[in-house]
Amino acid sequence: MSGSRAPEPALSVQGDATTSTGDEDEDAAHGTQHSHRMLSFSDALLSIIATVMILPVTHTEISPEQFDRSIQKLLATRIAVYLMTFLIVTVAWAAHTRLFQVVGKIDDTLALLNLACMMTITFLPYTFSLMMAFPEVPLGIFLFCVCVIAIGAVQALIVVYAFRLPHLLNPQIGCSAHRGLYRRHILHIVLRGPALCFLAAGFSLFFYPVSYLLMATVIFLPYASKAASWCRGRLVGPREPPAPSMEFFTYDLQEPLSKERVEAFSDGVYAIVATLLILDICEDNVPDAKVVEERFQGSLVAALSVYGPQFLAYFGSFATVGLLWFAHHSLFLHVRKATQSMGLLNTLSLAFVGGLPLAYQQTSAFAQQPRDELESVRVSCAIIFFASIFQFAMWTAALLREAETLQPSAWFGGQEHAFMCAKLALYPCASLLAFTLTCVLSRFSTAIFHSMQIAVPFAFLLLRLLVRLALALLRALRGLAAPARDTMDPRAPPLPAPC
Amino acid sequence: MSGSRAPEPALSVQGDATTSTGDEDEDAAHGTQHSHRMLSFSDALLSIIATVMILPVTHTEISPEQFDRSIQKLLATRIAVYLMTFLIVTVAWAAHTRLFQVVGKIDDTLALLNLACMMTITFLPYTFSLMMAFPEVPLGIFLFCVCVIAIGAVQALIVVYAFRLPHLLNPQIGCSAHRGLYRRHILHIVLRGPALCFLAAGFSLFFYPVSYLLMATVIFLPYASKAASWCRGRLVGPREPPAPSMEFFTYDLQEPLSKERVEAFSDGVYAIVATLLILDICEDNVPDAKVVEERFQGSLVAALSVYGPQFLAYFGSFATVGLLWFAHHSLFLHVRKATQSMGLLNTLSLAFVGGLPLAYQQTSAFAQQPRDELESVRVSCAIIFFASIFQFAMWTAALLREAETLQPSAWFGGQEHAFMCAKLALYPCASLLAFTLTCVLSRFSTAIFHSMQIAVPFAFLLLRLLVRLALALLRALRGLAAPARDTMDPRAPPLPAPC
Repeated sequence: MSGSRAPEPALSVQGDATTSTGDEDEDAAHGTQHSHRMLSFSDALLSIIATVMILPVTHTEISPEQFDRSIQKLLATRIAVYLMTFLIVTVAWAAHTRLFQVVGKIDDTLALLNLACMMTITFLPYTFSLMMAFPEVPLGIFLFCVCVIAIGAVQALIVVYAFRLPHLLNPQIGCSAHRGLYRRHILHIVLRGPALCFLAAGFSLFFYPVSYLLMATVIFLPYASKAASWCRGRLVGPREPPAPSMEFFTYDLQEPLSKERVEAFSDGVYAIVATLLILDICEDNVPDAKVVEERFQGSLVAALSVYGPQFLAYFGSFATVGLLWFAHHSLFLHVRKATQSMGLLNTLSLAFVGGLPLAYQQTSAFAQQPRDELESVRVSCAIIFFASIFQFAMWTAALLREAETLQPSAWFGGQEHAFMCAKLALYPCASLLAFTLTCVLSRFSTAIFHSMQIAVPFAFLLLRLLVRLALALLRALRGLAAPARDTMDPRAPPLPAPC
Repeated sequence: MSGSRAPEPALSVQGDATTSTGDEDEDAAHGTQHSHRMLSFSDALLSIIATVMILPVTHTEISPEQFDRSIQKLLATRIAVYLMTFLIVTVAWAAHTRLFQVVGKIDDTLALLNLACMMTITFLPYTFSLMMAFPEVPLGIFLFCVCVIAIGAVQALIVVYAFRLPHLLNPQIGCSAHRGLYRRHILHIVLRGPALCFLAAGFSLFFYPVSYLLMATVIFLPYASKAASWCRGRLVGPREPPAPSMEFFTYDLQEPLSKERVEAFSDGVYAIVATLLILDICEDNVPDAKVVEERFQGSLVAALSVYGPQFLAYFGSFATVGLLWFAHHSLFLHVRKATQSMGLLNTLSLAFVGGLPLAYQQTSAFAQQPRDELESVRVSCAIIFFASIFQFAMWTAALLREAETLQPSAWFGGQEHAFMCAKLALYPCASLLAFTLTCVLSRFSTAIFHSMQIAVPFAFLLLRLLVRLALALLRALRGLAAPARDTMDPRAPPLPAPC
């Protein structure tokens, strides 16, 4: 096997040899480091913390007999905690991304400060849990404000520290003559939220509703301001470019989202969602030895066959998560640069992806009770539909500014473009179809639903073939006569035009 | 704020502009893709699945009053499942790494095949759960074998597919005249485990103990063969390099581990461990509204103060996980190339890092019962000690072949070298110190232990200063007289020599 090993491996493995440049070695000697790995770690941490709060939701024990108000309230509370955590963590992640676009390299102090920042962010879900469990006690909101202020303080420290050692900064800022202005600008952005939270913490001590209002402002401000400016841009037309003397202010911290980090964050969410599924299986679906002995006369196979629907649900859900990741992956292969609106759509899509364990739980828990089967399949379809339609919206948003955001090969009209459209349209169409079927067929079974989930990968494999066929047919029809265009292949995916 | 936005962002953000090369666009047009992101996703998925099985262990409810045999057995079972899962997943990850060092680029079919492979791997923990719960029923081992065979089949399919489209292969293999030999060699390695499992599946039907034996062979074979060849190398000396005519066989699939993927896998483990901690806090430590009303007269602060030790434990544990990541990160900054022995040591270190939630659970659960306090602090110290000592061992292993594995600045004798040694020695020393203190002081409190955990970051910050001081002192002393060397600063970290 290893009888023919050379003292040195014959092939330089991808990336290994190229990363160990003299430049890097020089960095190491000066105690500065490329920030790449620290950012990947932060992305992984933040994406997991954003998603993992779905676990308490799925762990809520619901027996259909006693689905009373207290359980409904508990469930609603937990879903709210999940959504709020997801939102605030993505806001924090976006701020983190922007901050480390300014700070290009790190040293040990910055790495430790970043860890402190992460620790404070991971504590945020707990403050939400308190807030939702005791909405009338101001302690939860007070703790939340303290956390946000702490995060702001650490980030301000990072900015101040990095601007004192300009070789740590992004080269274009480090060399700029207007460094002081940049610093003030960035500090202003970093401290805006914490300042509001300081106010909110004060109000929480005597009149807490104002605190909730201020908190909502902190969370939604970036999105609201973006939406407002977008609407204004649509209505009034784009603003004039600023005078050249303003060059130093054009580094707009609102705009750029590093494509690489969007990918890393999304990967984390998909990975944790795929993993939470099997965790549930391992915790709940191993039968007890006594039960097997008494109820099934010692036959483990018989005992496991009871769980059959759960396993089907598991494979179906994993296939769905995996293929949604696959669609996301295909989409970002064509993306050059992620704009902020694409980032927002991505967040929305991921929030629904994070809800998939809930869909799994629903369809597997109700697999034995046909009464609520329709209901649960509908919830699953809705979650999958929203997760995939926001991906499609991301593609549409990218197309609006295709010269800037997309690779030329994916521009409007080409074959890759049609193929991408078809890929992204597959899940919205399939989930809509399943949803309509539940309305038409009253005895739609979850088993059929999961089989559909498992069948979708083959649709993806066939897709490229189908798109080619459809395009060839289209071209042939166009060649014959222009009015013949309406009679094209019904299996064809949406054509470039409707995008 | 955004009043001065230029039509185009003024700065090109790191990596964004550079990744959108014409080459990539050409790939996109041909339907092939760089495999980078798919590999990151696989790494994230595998690292999470390896680690997440610690959750059932920490969720085992142990009340110190009735710590009877059945609970002991349950706990032992779950720890065994965790360890076996960790081991098999790291083996599968290493095989995956090697496979995609051969397959350099991917297309849609390969991405989907990879997802199928991942789905099968995520199912492995369930087969372990069955095996441990019903060791005498051969169904668990049979399912395990079926999974391994399925994984092998998918991987073989990937190999065959990639070799049919040579532009997907690593360029050096794709252009080689001996491609057929490579293919046979790789298929042989990929199918070795599944072949053994096929045998094991057969035996499981009539004489299952043989199956367990064969399974152990599959899991430990790579490690055992490596250890054997290492021992042989130590005893007999390195083997002769093969004749030049053997060039085509020197691509040894045993040896190279992509540094980038080792980092990504480790990041995933650290991130999920850090996150599991807060999940426990959010699920268990939000008091019930009724309890607050009745026991604490509606005072939430009083109710939360009961959980004080848990919060301290949380911050202490997070600091420990974060700093172990930090040490790992610092270490890999100096690493150029990870050898297989470093990979093994990394795996061992990560397995103990994955056990940290258990340490947290121990110290926080027993915070109220001083009886078992000593015990639990000792368990925590032991876990931290092993996690950190394996990191140190990794550094030692790298030093043995420093010309090949390390950046020149970290080579034996320099200041960076001393600093790195000190960084890696900090946790083993601190945990040993804490362990010894538990033996000396009979009333060692967990609060002090957690405070120690929180104090360590400051030690890291001071470390560089101390090392510089120590080295300066050493140089001054050397300059004065050679025999004065023994009287150096007692605070000094281990000197280069003992490494």
